[in-house]
Amino acid sequence: MEEQPKLKIIGVLHGDIASREDAPKNYDESRRVGILEIYPEYKEALDGIVSGQTIVVLFWLHKSTRDTLKVYPRGDKSKELRGVFATRSPVRPNPIAISDLKVLRIHGGRLEVSGLDILDGTPIVDIKKKIS
Amino acid sequence: MEEQPKLKIIGVLHGDIASREDAPKNYDESRRVGILEIYPEYKEALDGIVSGQTIVVLFWLHKSTRDTLKVYPRGDKSKELRGVFATRSPVRPNPIAISDLKVLRIHGGRLEVSGLDILDGTPIVDIKKKIS
Repeated sequence: MEEQPKLKIIGVLHGDIASREDAPKNYDESRRVGILEIYPEYKEALDGIVSGQTIVVLFWLHKSTRDTLKVYPRGDKSKELRGVFATRSPVRPNPIAISDLKVLRIHGGRLEVSGLDILDGTPIVDIKKKIS
Repeated sequence: MEEQPKLKIIGVLHGDIASREDAPKNYDESRRVGILEIYPEYKEALDGIVSGQTIVVLFWLHKSTRDTLKVYPRGDKSKELRGVFATRSPVRPNPIAISDLKVLRIHGGRLEVSGLDILDGTPIVDIKKKIS
């Protein structure tokens, strides 16, 4: 086994959340719209995705700390510290976020999607069909 | 941004699926049981996980091809080739699998789980709380 596999960045998110302070902290479904720009070399891997469907997108949260193993749930310091694997905190050894997004439109390698709670400029590492 | 972020392997799966031929090819829920062995340096990140809960586990499918962008859906060659991002195929640029697993028992860094469809020996890269 490779000890530390390297991720390939397949694209980048263009959205309107510019800083972590702007990002929603709860689990409410976001209605924010943005563009997944998939790089040309991966474009053909999109074939079969259609408008209206829900996709599962994995983002690499490049601004997140990777060496913190305990956090206050939702940043609430009145609560007890918890292990990051017991939470959805972006802080974790491999800061990968899983987002269910609705595809509004596809134009070449650009997917317009809604449901975003991820920072503008975040690298994309995978897209999967959503299993209901 | 780091161009190719490196994943940290946080543990390894011990299960009874020894080869890809044994692995279930459909989406039926598996009842297979196995052990997630989390390495000692990440053990405290498990604090707060309890028996009976469902966790979301990300595996690095180290046996998967990373340079194929189109596949036959579920291996069925009577169908049209599809882009891997429109499927759940393990073949993809970053072969990360997402599994919802039920925690049966926790003993130190070892989590006994059910619901597995992943090969024995597969590296683990993340665990998250399941959002219902």
